Parts: sequence; C-alpha cells; structure tokens
Amino acid sequence: MLGTAVLVLLGAGVVANAILPAAKGAGGGPVMIHWGWGIGVFAGVYVAYRSGAHLNPAVTLGLWANGATEYAPGIPVTVTTTAVYLAAELLGAFLGAVLAWLAYKKQFDQDADPALKLGVFSTDPEVPSRVWNVVTELIGTFVLVFVILLFAKTPSGLGPFAVALLVVGIGASLGGPTGYAINPARDLGPRIAHALLPIPGKGSSNWGYAWVPVVGPLLGGVLAGLVAQVF
Amino acid sequence: MLGTAVLVLLGAGVVANAILPAAKGAGGGPVMIHWGWGIGVFAGVYVAYRSGAHLNPAVTLGLWANGATEYAPGIPVTVTTTAVYLAAELLGAFLGAVLAWLAYKKQFDQDADPALKLGVFSTDPEVPSRVWNVVTELIGTFVLVFVILLFAKTPSGLGPFAVALLVVGIGASLGGPTGYAINPARDLGPRIAHALLPIPGKGSSNWGYAWVPVVGPLLGGVLAGLVAQVF
Amino acid sequence: MLGTAVLVLLGAGVVANAILPAAKGAGGGPVMIHWGWGIGVFAGVYVAYRSGAHLNPAVTLGLWANGATEYAPGIPVTVTTTAVYLAAELLGAFLGAVLAWLAYKKQFDQDADPALKLGVFSTDPEVPSRVWNVVTELIGTFVLVFVILLFAKTPSGLGPFAVALLVVGIGASLGGPTGYAINPARDLGPRIAHALLPIPGKGSSNWGYAWVPVVGPLLGGVLAGLVAQVF
Amino acid sequence: MLGTAVLVLLGAGVVANAILPAAKGAGGGPVMIHWGWGIGVFAGVYVAYRSGAHLNPAVTLGLWANGATEYAPGIPVTVTTTAVYLAAELLGAFLGAVLAWLAYKKQFDQDADPALKLGVFSTDPEVPSRVWNVVTELIGTFVLVFVILLFAKTPSGLGPFAVALLVVGIGASLGGPTGYAINPARDLGPRIAHALLPIPGKGSSNWGYAWVPVVGPLLGGVLAGLVAQVF
Repeated sequence: MLGTAVLVLLGAGVVANAILPAAKGAGGGPVMIHWGWGIGVFAGVYVAYRSGAHLNPAVTLGLWANGATEYAPGIPVTVTTTAVYLAAELLGAFLGAVLAWLAYKKQFDQDADPALKLGVFSTDPEVPSRVWNVVTELIGTFVLVFVILLFAKTPSGLGPFAVALLVVGIGASLGGPTGYAINPARDLGPRIAHALLPIPGKGSSNWGYAWVPVVGPLLGGVLAGLVAQVF
Repeated sequence: MLGTAVLVLLGAGVVANAILPAAKGAGGGPVMIHWGWGIGVFAGVYVAYRSGAHLNPAVTLGLWANGATEYAPGIPVTVTTTAVYLAAELLGAFLGAVLAWLAYKKQFDQDADPALKLGVFSTDPEVPSRVWNVVTELIGTFVLVFVILLFAKTPSGLGPFAVALLVVGIGASLGGPTGYAINPARDLGPRIAHALLPIPGKGSSNWGYAWVPVVGPLLGGVLAGLVAQVF
Repeated sequence: MLGTAVLVLLGAGVVANAILPAAKGAGGGPVMIHWGWGIGVFAGVYVAYRSGAHLNPAVTLGLWANGATEYAPGIPVTVTTTAVYLAAELLGAFLGAVLAWLAYKKQFDQDADPALKLGVFSTDPEVPSRVWNVVTELIGTFVLVFVILLFAKTPSGLGPFAVALLVVGIGASLGGPTGYAINPARDLGPRIAHALLPIPGKGSSNWGYAWVPVVGPLLGGVLAGLVAQVF
Repeated sequence: MLGTAVLVLLGAGVVANAILPAAKGAGGGPVMIHWGWGIGVFAGVYVAYRSGAHLNPAVTLGLWANGATEYAPGIPVTVTTTAVYLAAELLGAFLGAVLAWLAYKKQFDQDADPALKLGVFSTDPEVPSRVWNVVTELIGTFVLVFVILLFAKTPSGLGPFAVALLVVGIGASLGGPTGYAINPARDLGPRIAHALLPIPGKGSSNWGYAWVPVVGPLLGGVLAGLVAQVF
C-alpha cells in the first residue's frame, strides 16, 4: 500500500507539474513525465520491498498466472493474499493521488481545463476506441510483466532501476495512444480520488472509460504470466 | 526472435509516439526517441538472454568476424546457426513492427504525411547520398559492435544497461544523417511490414534506399569484429 | 562541507545555465535542471563519503529522529556532532553558491530580471501560500528521507546513483509548486550568498519566504525518520 | 588514442546532430548534447580500459599531481609515459573529429553559419573574457578530476557509468559560459582538424581562444590532484 502510494504520488505529481497552470514543470514535456513515473516505480519498489515489491495488480496477477507459489518470502499465493494485495494496491494508489493533490493544492485551485485536472489522476485515450485502447494497454502491460518476469531469471546488478527503466521505455514507446495506465490500481484509485476530492472546476471523472485501463492491463499481465511460463 | 520483436516494438513505438498525429508524445523530440530505442535494446536483451542476447545481424556477424566459437552456451558458430540467428532477427523485427502498428492502430488510421508513417517503420536519410549514407551507418555500427565486444572484456556491473546507454549515445551522436539503423533487421523487417500491412495512405516503402541500412551496418559490424580481434 | 559545496555548485550552476541570459543551456528546460541537481547529489555523496555522505540537514535530523547512533563510522550522534554537521552543510551550501557565481560571473553581470538572478540561488513558490508551500516541501522531503532510509535496508548495487535518481524524480514530480528546496542548507546558504555577493541588479533576497524552505524540509525529514522507525 | 577518438566522435557527433542543418537531432537541445558527451566518455573508457582509461590530459596530469605511481597496471608515471599519454590523447581527439566529419559529411557540405561548423569541433565562450573563461573551465575540470579521484576510494558498482553521469552533470551545470571543454585534447585536437579539413565555408578556427580550453582544464586538473592529496 505504501509503495503504490509513493508510486502514484510521484506519478500524478509529475503530470501535475507538466500540465497544470502555475507549476514550474511546463516545458519538461513527455520525457519528464516518463522519468517521473519511472522513478515513482523505483522509489515504490524500495518502499514495498519487504512485501515483495507489488505495486500493480497486473503484475500480481501475472505472477499468479505464471505459477508463483509465494508473493514474498513467507507469503503464499492464495485467494486471500491475492485479494489483500489487490486491495492494498488500490488503496495505496488512492492515497498517493490524495497526497499529490495536497502537494499541488494551489495549482488545482487555479482555473484550468477540467480535462487537465482529471489528467493528473487518470489516463484517457487520444483517439477513443474501446477495442483498440484495450489492445494498446494489453500490449504495454504484456511487455511490462513479461520482461519483469525475465529480470528474475537473468543476472544483473541493477535491481529496481531495471524496472524503472522499463517503465520509462514503455511510457515513451507505448504510451502515445492511451497514456499507459499499464496498472489498474494506478488508474482506478486516483479516479476515485478525483471523484471524491473537493477540486474546484474538476468536471467529470470519465467513468465510461474507467474499465479500459483495468481490463486491458489485467489481460496483458495474465497473458504475460502464461506466455512466460511456456517460454 | 522474441528479443528483436520487443526491441522493434519499443523502437517503432517511440517513433510513432513522437511523430504520428493524435499521440501524446509530441514534444518528446529526439531525446525521447533515443531512450525509447535504448530501452528497447535493454528489454530485448533480457528477452533474448537465453540464446545469447542476439538482436542484430551486425552484432551476430561481428561476433563471427571476431572469431567467436559459440553464439550462446552450447550453440556453436556454424553456417546453419548463423542463418537461423539472422532469420530469427529479421522475423522478430517484422513481428515487432506489426505489434507497434497494432498498438498505434488508431494513430495510423489518421491522415498524415506518408513519410511519417514510413518513418515509424524504417530509416531514411536527411540528405540522400548512397556512399555517405553507407559511411554514416558503417561508422555508427562500428562503434556499437566494437564497444559491445569490449564490454565482455571489462569488469562492470551494468549488464544490459551498458548496451542501452551505448545505443542512446549512438542515436544522439551518429543518428543525425540517416536515423541510425545500425541493425539490418531493425530496418528491413519493419520495411517489409510496412509494405504488407493495410495502412491507409501509407505511400511508398522506399525500396530504393533499403539496401543502405543493410549493407552499411553489416560492413561496420564485420569491420569492428576484425579490428577488435587485432586490438 | 565539501560535499554540500559540490552539490550546490552543480545545482545552482544548472539553474544559472537554464535561466540566465548568455548561457548555452537555454532550452534544456526542467529536465536539465532535475538531472543537474540529481548529479550534484551524486557527486556530493562521493565527496562527503568519509563523513557519512551528509549533504542535507533534513536527512541528518531524519537519521537522528530514526534513532541512528552514529552519523558515520566512529562519529556518534550527539548534540555537538549534530550542530557541527548542520553548520558544515550550511557553510558548504554557501561556498557552493559562491563558486557557481564565479563560474557564471559574466552571465550574472548581464542585465536580467532580478528574480532570475535570485532563482539561481534560492527557491520561490509559483503561488505564494505559507501553509501550502510548507506542505509541499514537507511531502517532498518526506519522500526523500523515507526512501533514503529504506535504501539502507534493501540490497542494490546502485550506491549514490539511487539517491541521484530519487532527487531527479522528486524534482520532476514534486518540484512544481515551490522549486523543491527539500534541503534547508541548499536554500538558506545560497540565499545568504545572494545577499552578500556584489551582483549587479540583484534585487531582494526575499527573506520573507526564507523560513519556508527551512521549516518544511526539517518537518518532513524528522517525520520520515519517525515513520520509518515504526515501519 | 582509440578511447579519446571514440569520445570525440560521439561528442562532436552529438553537437553536429544538434546544430547542423539537415540533421535529425534539431530540438534535442542541451540535454541531448550532455548525454552524447557523457556516453562518449562511457564508451571511451571501455575502449581505453587496458591502458588505464585515460581520455583527458587534465585527468592524466591530475593523477600525476595526486602522486600516482602508475597510469595503468605496469605503466609507471614518468616524463616519457606522460608525454606519450598526452600525445595519444591529442591524436585520438583529432581522429575522432575527422570521423565525426565523415559521418556528417553531407551536413557539413550544406550552407551554414561558420560558427556552427566550428562549434561541432571546438568550444567558444558565450561572453568572451579570458580571465573568467579560464575560471569557468578551471572550476568545471576541478570538479571532474576531484570526483574521479574520489570514485577510486569509494565502493560502488557503477564503473564507467559514474564518470559518464559526472560529465553529463558538469555539462548541464557548468557548461553554460564556455561549453565545457574540461579536456585540453577534446578542444585542441578537433580545432586542428577543423583547420586542416576541406569543409566548405568553414570560416576561422578561432585560434585566439584556443589556449583558454587548454590552460583552464590543466590548471583545474592539477589543482584537483593536489587538493585530493591533502584531503
């Protein structure tokens, strides 16, 4: 929960810095955003290290589909532990979004396009298309989970930096159409926060799209777990 | 094959993100593109680790020219294994380009300059000149293969990140004239995909240039293997 | 002292490069600034390694709050050593700012908005609000100190690079509202230098804001030390 | 010699990519340039690893001033070996510049401001001032050599990447006034190449400034060696 909170605090924060009025990050552009999310994962992995560094339901379920027997040393894969991990990830993402809102409180209080204010919390597609948006999220999450599963089988001294780099790369390479949720908690938790928080002029939380960044990443993660098991 | 597919998926993807209309990456510029390709190599190395992390015919032939006896533990260097590696690299690059097209399907369906749509798949020179374009690709690939061969002889805990950084640097430093194919499969496989895929308004696949990013990198890779053997 | 001097030399330097007239860094934008500060921390950690790599009073007091018994091997945590560390950090930050001024002497001699000249030395908020500016600095520093404390409990071969990445990420993600002092010495030392140095047309040193980037980071650092102790 | 050639090939190349007409790197800006030089150092260190990874006379003389007894295992510090190292570094930088010119031949053949064409090879100050330009180069090189000397005394698994990061940071933070030669060979070798190569419309090689990026870095490197010895 704390790990996902740090992930979303840094991730939502970097988007706020890049797109809200009266923030210093204007001009950082996509590169700043990709590194902000990547380093959010980096920091979150350290925070959540003791419980197996789970920050993402698509990775958690990908491990399950891959046949893992433990989520972390001493924590067996069961229906109960899986539910606890998913709930903690969602709750952490919610908390991280609230913290990002507190850090950028005076920026959220400025006048701005409601779509920008929602964009700090949740993803949206550049070209709406339920099928193809799911495909994009599925491919991005497949790469994330498949390569993470291979990290564990490959000698390398990079540790959490490898995951951070991978997230930077997926953002740069596969984030163009839908904004790379690639993590159901990262999108749904902050969307709930957006709906609940007292943000002036916040507009709709776009619930009609909310299932896409949940279903696409879960399909991609489970598929990656299954393919990696064969491979 | 899978490693090169991931490399080209992330590599073609980042170009799509940067140059296609209706993608979020506008403004990421060259720096975003260099890191996208670099991290594509990074991820591809993990995926192809078991078979020796071959993603590039110029590296494969460079190892051969350098006198390698094995492409990976237990896989001897023979005419047959070489042909299998080259074919797998080409096929993987083709598949990666198809996946990038699927991820950016709705962006490819938009109206755009046909040169941009081709640019997602294959390289083209800023100033066409068969001789000098070959020279540029040769120099870039020489640096790639020569330094990779030295990685193996130098203590360092960076693993695949070292190759990723090197590719970022070659893109930044030597990619200006021709877009740094520095890998025959990376250019030819996606060019075939461009020719075959049903992309609206896609224009020519520019086959007249297609031999340059094959011949230049192969010459550079083999030369690097020979020089490194002496050195 | 020397470590904090190098940190502030590189940190103030990168801001000078980005915002002063007649410097080559125009267009580097926020991403250049974040990496400049991050690498400043990276270099400073090596310089201060023998005395425990202390560059930041918020980290020093966070370690104290976390129950540390030594600041470095052989240096016990006492009132006296704490005071010496805090004074050395402040003095080092002052010296680093003087060195950055010397390196950019001819740029400081140009006509420019006094706010830009002060901006090289010290932070200022985009939207002034004492309470919310403290909140932002507190959250940013909490993440810094909390994750640094966890680095020590997690296997990883990254060493000072991990801290550098974390600082890049906090700058990108939480620097938007106040410019991420996240270090009382980094803000106060250079502000004193700004007040003392003979800079043409330098304007006010904005002392009314000076307590915010001292109090916010100290609160965040101590809170992180306490929470990490429980956690 | 080969290491410095690779350093300058990638370093001059990235500047060519960023500033020459008809290259793809327009818009990469300072950040692209800093990473190009940083990765140039990274690659050059691997190439020159066997002879001690010397790429820079200021580092070579800094080691001498620091009291080193060997430049590499089995190579004692003598007047002769010092002269051989300095000459090889200068010759390598010359060769690297020639290779960068070959890679960007068609770009150099375009019409462009002569100052841009020289800028690919050698540095120049934004505000000419012999004294202050020397000060800037001295400070930048002091940081480079001082921190490199400390790398050797600090546990870290980063190897050549640490030096690359440091060069990126010095470029970002201290490159604004003079373009950070911080290496006499890197500036003088390419300046000689510029004078000799048949580049259309190349203009003056600005020999009046040529001593500054030689003297400043040498002073900074020797000073760093002496201070590190005391420290």
